[in-house]
Amino acid sequence: MAEAGRTAPPVATLTTDFGAADGYVAAMKGVMLGIEPRLVLVDVTHEAPPQDVAHGAFVLAEAARHFPAGAVHLAVVDPGVGGRRKSLLVVTPDAAYVAPDNGLLTHALSRYGSAHDQRAEWLSPIRAPLPPGCRAFELANPRYRLSDVSHTFHGRDVFAPAAAYLSAGVPPEEFGPPVADVIWLNVPPPVESNGEIEGRVVHVDSFGNLITNIALEEDGAGRAVVEIEGLRIQGLSRSYEEAAGALAIIGSHGTVEIAVRNGSAARQFSEGVGARVRVHC
Amino acid sequence: MAEAGRTAPPVATLTTDFGAADGYVAAMKGVMLGIEPRLVLVDVTHEAPPQDVAHGAFVLAEAARHFPAGAVHLAVVDPGVGGRRKSLLVVTPDAAYVAPDNGLLTHALSRYGSAHDQRAEWLSPIRAPLPPGCRAFELANPRYRLSDVSHTFHGRDVFAPAAAYLSAGVPPEEFGPPVADVIWLNVPPPVESNGEIEGRVVHVDSFGNLITNIALEEDGAGRAVVEIEGLRIQGLSRSYEEAAGALAIIGSHGTVEIAVRNGSAARQFSEGVGARVRVHC
Amino acid sequence: MAEAGRTAPPVATLTTDFGAADGYVAAMKGVMLGIEPRLVLVDVTHEAPPQDVAHGAFVLAEAARHFPAGAVHLAVVDPGVGGRRKSLLVVTPDAAYVAPDNGLLTHALSRYGSAHDQRAEWLSPIRAPLPPGCRAFELANPRYRLSDVSHTFHGRDVFAPAAAYLSAGVPPEEFGPPVADVIWLNVPPPVESNGEIEGRVVHVDSFGNLITNIALEEDGAGRAVVEIEGLRIQGLSRSYEEAAGALAIIGSHGTVEIAVRNGSAARQFSEGVGARVRVHC
Repeated sequence: MAEAGRTAPPVATLTTDFGAADGYVAAMKGVMLGIEPRLVLVDVTHEAPPQDVAHGAFVLAEAARHFPAGAVHLAVVDPGVGGRRKSLLVVTPDAAYVAPDNGLLTHALSRYGSAHDQRAEWLSPIRAPLPPGCRAFELANPRYRLSDVSHTFHGRDVFAPAAAYLSAGVPPEEFGPPVADVIWLNVPPPVESNGEIEGRVVHVDSFGNLITNIALEEDGAGRAVVEIEGLRIQGLSRSYEEAAGALAIIGSHGTVEIAVRNGSAARQFSEGVGARVRVHC
Repeated sequence: MAEAGRTAPPVATLTTDFGAADGYVAAMKGVMLGIEPRLVLVDVTHEAPPQDVAHGAFVLAEAARHFPAGAVHLAVVDPGVGGRRKSLLVVTPDAAYVAPDNGLLTHALSRYGSAHDQRAEWLSPIRAPLPPGCRAFELANPRYRLSDVSHTFHGRDVFAPAAAYLSAGVPPEEFGPPVADVIWLNVPPPVESNGEIEGRVVHVDSFGNLITNIALEEDGAGRAVVEIEGLRIQGLSRSYEEAAGALAIIGSHGTVEIAVRNGSAARQFSEGVGARVRVHC
Repeated sequence: MAEAGRTAPPVATLTTDFGAADGYVAAMKGVMLGIEPRLVLVDVTHEAPPQDVAHGAFVLAEAARHFPAGAVHLAVVDPGVGGRRKSLLVVTPDAAYVAPDNGLLTHALSRYGSAHDQRAEWLSPIRAPLPPGCRAFELANPRYRLSDVSHTFHGRDVFAPAAAYLSAGVPPEEFGPPVADVIWLNVPPPVESNGEIEGRVVHVDSFGNLITNIALEEDGAGRAVVEIEGLRIQGLSRSYEEAAGALAIIGSHGTVEIAVRNGSAARQFSEGVGARVRVHC
């Protein structure tokens, strides 16, 4: 299997809010395959809620960390298309990303270092330096775009060609001038005081699970108490089967999740992204 | 084309209830491509209704039988994840499957021999031997899992690596101890008496067609009478165009389907999976 | 990258109304990979509204024009399956298509020459010759179908094998007799009089953007006035950010679109496909 890896074809993923009913995603893939026919294309999601940059940012990061080193991740949730926001190429120690400069890479970058402001509003955009080991370039070189760039579809005209040329071996520096600061969504880490951790729901998945940013060790999880808006859950479960109704569990993201067995926690508790969650042991 | 087959890359399909809005499916694909970069990945569905094992079982089997010999089919509709249910690798004469041991392979296995109980409840789980020519193994070997296995996402941590290692050539015996009995959903075949066949609706597709388990010969189909809950259809159609409203037809699954031209039979007749259907000639 | 193109694997796209919850699309892909294992398969959409040939026709054409030369496009929105309509293979100067003869290729073919009737009803089917440079054949040769052809699923039994054999190098003439006239949906081009252009909404995308068939030059767009059912928009925007509410813009299809920033124009104005739009400068 290591041997197969030597000749592994390049992998590119796609994360958008374009939905499944139109030809927009396929248009991007057509452009990409025209440039690099060996590309293995993998959809992350095209069902980010329209213009929901935070949703795209979370889902992209969670998927991207499981891809082989060197994968290129195209992400387009882009309410500012055609306006003043930059188009970025970002290279991390593990992967490369092409995306609008609007916070869509927040969770992907925060593996390497965080930028946030405890006093600023939750999810508000802040401009801050890239983490150590990461580099960014503006997608400015007309050679690596389509010849006509529309006002409304940079996914096809700017980001798809960039992802494909990058996959085909064009060096990152070729795409445009370096960029030092990028936009982050303000997602402060949990705060701890008096043995209590207060974090937030950072994502609601399609099962209705409330996924928090509170990482917890398995040890002592049995004694933990998880609270969200009046609901109080005693102890962390080790499987969905263990509980009858609401439960807290360390989920596949490595953080505390609140779930309802065979149901939707989001619907049952009317809670969503940004809700405060407290854990104490 | 036979020639191209000699160097055919391995094919793996994916069937889940994970939906399209999250990164769960892509995370599995990333894991798989990291192990076997030549894999051709094909989605069967990720829109099985949450925890609906019967839906996944039907859809998986209908798709799988059209794939080239040797394809590996990953299936995860898994309400018992993290609990006591086994993780299985099943090898049939035509393909291989990785799935939780919860009945998800019922229809795929029933091509080779059936296990059912006419007196037990429809779709209830029963434990019974594998059909002849099929072998099963428990996915127990830690070498072919991710190093950390979460409580909630065995699709990524157990089944995706297994499917990829199997596609890359690891022998089935390597994955764990052999398993003799597996869980089947109880889907008894139609019963015939006095020239009348009584079967069931086994699937409702997204057009609202009611698909039964009643296989019928084309000859004499003109004289057949199909009945479902008060509705009586005289004769089988040979195309949707032939009828104005409700019609019965031998569908693409080789069994009797009840359809409404340019409409939804499921909605019009408020019927679904499990409904009894009678055919007499 | 030109070098990679020399050994580029064949590309086939798929456009249907089959939805995502069933195994129908995967069954087609299984058939295709069994015939041509090197195929790169790209989904255009499977979410065309059931039996909505016009939706499929628009989406297919917009995606197809971005694919590398020689791609094969399979399209199945097929209310007449099993009835009298022909199954077609159409070769254009850039690509090949397999589809039922029901108007599904209208927008793909109109790049090469149009067929329409200003007096006939909008979207009604008309029979007319292929444009210059295009050839069509009936998919009649049993050698390039599955051995059993169902009444209800020619996508799997007729079109999938045809697309795969064509991708594998079978010459178009082998598939059946030539066809001179095909079905077009009646989509007349805009009419111009007294400096006013009257066109139609030809597609509503999943953002709710109303996409017209009115192509306009960027110059003088600032002076243009766009009218739809009582709504009057002064000047064309160059980005969504420029306007607060409703705006008109030259979209990624190269034609005038009516959009609502961070909202849905279709919902806000209750307009859809076929609505008349007037532009004057």
